[in-house]
Amino acid sequence: MASQLSRIMRPDDANVAGNVHGGTILKMIEEAGAIISTRHCNSQNGERCVAALARVERTDFLSPMCIGEVAHVSAEITYTSKHSVEVQVNVMSENILTGTKKLTNKATLWYVPLSLKNVDKVLEVPPVVYSRQEQEEEGRKRYEAQKLERMETKWKNGDIVQPVMNPEPNTVSYSQSSLIHLVGPSDCTLHGFVHGGVTMKLMDEVAGIVAARHCKTNIVTASVDAINFHDKIRKGCVITISGRMTFTSNKSMEIEVLVDADPVVDNSQKRYRAASAFFTYVSLSQEGKPLPVPQLVPETEDEKKRFEEGKGRYLQMKAKRQGQAEPQA
Amino acid sequence: MASQLSRIMRPDDANVAGNVHGGTILKMIEEAGAIISTRHCNSQNGERCVAALARVERTDFLSPMCIGEVAHVSAEITYTSKHSVEVQVNVMSENILTGTKKLTNKATLWYVPLSLKNVDKVLEVPPVVYSRQEQEEEGRKRYEAQKLERMETKWKNGDIVQPVMNPEPNTVSYSQSSLIHLVGPSDCTLHGFVHGGVTMKLMDEVAGIVAARHCKTNIVTASVDAINFHDKIRKGCVITISGRMTFTSNKSMEIEVLVDADPVVDNSQKRYRAASAFFTYVSLSQEGKPLPVPQLVPETEDEKKRFEEGKGRYLQMKAKRQGQAEPQA
Amino acid sequence: MASQLSRIMRPDDANVAGNVHGGTILKMIEEAGAIISTRHCNSQNGERCVAALARVERTDFLSPMCIGEVAHVSAEITYTSKHSVEVQVNVMSENILTGTKKLTNKATLWYVPLSLKNVDKVLEVPPVVYSRQEQEEEGRKRYEAQKLERMETKWKNGDIVQPVMNPEPNTVSYSQSSLIHLVGPSDCTLHGFVHGGVTMKLMDEVAGIVAARHCKTNIVTASVDAINFHDKIRKGCVITISGRMTFTSNKSMEIEVLVDADPVVDNSQKRYRAASAFFTYVSLSQEGKPLPVPQLVPETEDEKKRFEEGKGRYLQMKAKRQGQAEPQA
Repeated sequence: MASQLSRIMRPDDANVAGNVHGGTILKMIEEAGAIISTRHCNSQNGERCVAALARVERTDFLSPMCIGEVAHVSAEITYTSKHSVEVQVNVMSENILTGTKKLTNKATLWYVPLSLKNVDKVLEVPPVVYSRQEQEEEGRKRYEAQKLERMETKWKNGDIVQPVMNPEPNTVSYSQSSLIHLVGPSDCTLHGFVHGGVTMKLMDEVAGIVAARHCKTNIVTASVDAINFHDKIRKGCVITISGRMTFTSNKSMEIEVLVDADPVVDNSQKRYRAASAFFTYVSLSQEGKPLPVPQLVPETEDEKKRFEEGKGRYLQMKAKRQGQAEPQA
Repeated sequence: MASQLSRIMRPDDANVAGNVHGGTILKMIEEAGAIISTRHCNSQNGERCVAALARVERTDFLSPMCIGEVAHVSAEITYTSKHSVEVQVNVMSENILTGTKKLTNKATLWYVPLSLKNVDKVLEVPPVVYSRQEQEEEGRKRYEAQKLERMETKWKNGDIVQPVMNPEPNTVSYSQSSLIHLVGPSDCTLHGFVHGGVTMKLMDEVAGIVAARHCKTNIVTASVDAINFHDKIRKGCVITISGRMTFTSNKSMEIEVLVDADPVVDNSQKRYRAASAFFTYVSLSQEGKPLPVPQLVPETEDEKKRFEEGKGRYLQMKAKRQGQAEPQA
Repeated sequence: MASQLSRIMRPDDANVAGNVHGGTILKMIEEAGAIISTRHCNSQNGERCVAALARVERTDFLSPMCIGEVAHVSAEITYTSKHSVEVQVNVMSENILTGTKKLTNKATLWYVPLSLKNVDKVLEVPPVVYSRQEQEEEGRKRYEAQKLERMETKWKNGDIVQPVMNPEPNTVSYSQSSLIHLVGPSDCTLHGFVHGGVTMKLMDEVAGIVAARHCKTNIVTASVDAINFHDKIRKGCVITISGRMTFTSNKSMEIEVLVDADPVVDNSQKRYRAASAFFTYVSLSQEGKPLPVPQLVPETEDEKKRFEEGKGRYLQMKAKRQGQAEPQA
């Protein structure tokens, strides 16, 4: 049942300091998830379908991966509801010269099976077989929790990143960045919509540029907040990925990333918010130790509000991490 | 002496309609130019060097290239001055199933040899051997002409593309677009600066998005103005490529593209203008025929001035093309 | 001990008809082989090393792979001599919609461990543990056989592909093709030489162009002859890959591919032959059935000699295949 994906990390997967981009890892995680969930959803006779990414739960980057190491990505289906599949993915880095292996990520992804005949139709998911009885009940709880959270995060579509002339260092305007990307065939499934992993890779790229502009050092992804994918992005769209810093602690930066899709050629559809998430970055010294980061200076009322919200998320995660100091699976 | 490069065009080289991006072709042209000029500049004993792109003369895209065709790019050194090399590059498309071959581009590039020990030092170029005596004199004229033109095009660094809220269709603000790109290892020569071809490919990508946003149809590159490369872009820079429409004729659009480099990590160097050029795009019907384009509505004084300048360039090229109606090589 | 590599096949991995390029598969095979052999050679304390590809045994492409399918590549060490490792690689294609799995390739690769401190020094290989006693003896026979064959194939360096003006259809000159590639960072190992898989992918690309030019239909790789890698190709080299048709049977074409490396910047080293091999291609109808191919017309004495040699290889393989008509693993 498990699915495994392995690949050597190359120069193009990493930044100038040799640390593999968080976005490269997120893209591999999503590929492993898409394979196992598409396989599962087609395991019974009936209409053929493709699994589309609906949500990624919050994930931490536990240790850095470097060029030349082998990434091992393993995926397993851990729960199925009537219309969705939960996939658990683990990422290990292996140094094939020394033999050292490290856990770098644990991620949870939710997929929804879309009919190949009509990609707007959601099909039913064959039930998974659980090895322990409690697994189904635990999975149902996770399913309900994420459903609730998805409801709450309806994005304010009007809110976009606005450039400012001659911004001061350490302000939000100084480091904010946007990237446009014309969706090409390699970004897409066979059925003409963008792989969730491609979107996440671009999101991490923008977040990394914001972080590098802010602190002008070697920066790496520390964690990504839950990402909800509100709508499919189709081939031929232009997507705009915008990032702005929302909060800084002593040694971390939180960056909000917004993804908007613009069906350039198709006049009938308006630009829409496709996804958004918060990325946390840290700054590393040449020896790989975390460095203090310059404090963000929020200027407008909106920026101050977002700073406080970011602080709230930061303190909540800190408390949660301390509460979890017991041994875990 | 000649250098030849051939490659099958893949889905990622083309837009959704199957037409190969002008930027893909520009990138191959530059790769062929870089190989032949680097080889020539190292053909004598002495300090080792790498040839850096300094300028590309105006080039037309004479016929579209499609996925599955083979692009043949051939380069030849046509002139050398003390510190620069002129390379003439021809591009043919070959349909390997029907055997049809078409000339798609003729381009002229200028390279400068930079010392491998110190990339800020320009070395001397070994003289090329001419087969006809007049060639040297003709080359010297082209050399002087481009030198003069380079002098004249000193870029106004303050001039950047500013977004506007809720722009009206057909205005400059409506279609203007920016792209940020973090320079990665594959974008660079072995010596840590960006290949000229990579920059040109990104410039064409932005111009294409501007054109598609403006006319919402299948669009292709028709020509590129002379591009001057004012300064090297180093590994680790963030480059911002911005495009705005300057002029429309009945069936063509002119887009100005600006490239700014930001040495994010290196605090000592300010953001600088690295290159800029005008791209001309046409809109094609499903049968590949040119379509009328919506007329651009310039709003501000600057936009009106740029529109008139664009019109001047358009009329000048039109006159030149009609004057060249005599048989050509 | 086994190593597994999986990946979804994308549009860029395939030709216009949707068949995955043989070169894409060869590149994955080599990546799996490089991982497992580098890991094995570093499994004991001692000098760190990287495994460099020395030879690939003849391999057949048993069934075509398509876009959207998942390729599963598994590698296992089957023999070790004092200075080399034999790796057996199997490739399966999985259609995740229907669940169908097919064996597409079985390949045998030989690696040699090079010291990280001095890539010209070959290290010793830790012995592998065999599960059956006969395995060691069988492996030693394969090792001796390939060693003998490598000795025999000393390439004639003077023999290169020369273009001819206005060649007639079906001649060798008509379809012969060359491709020039500037080795970039992504083509290389961390230690600055080209991955064997990258070279094989380029070789297959040239062979495919030759085959398509000759028969002007959808063509696919049927098999690759043993490939010997005579010497490392270093970062910064320009490699020329040339292909020419040597022989046609009723339904297959044999193409010889030569790889020459040119250390452009480094004047002290001459251009050298890095590898060469014979690729066999077949032509497929739209329904995927093999089509007759136009007969090759050898013109010069050399071409006629190569045609006869190709015929010899073809008849030998045919006899071998008929002799193997007994059930196989």
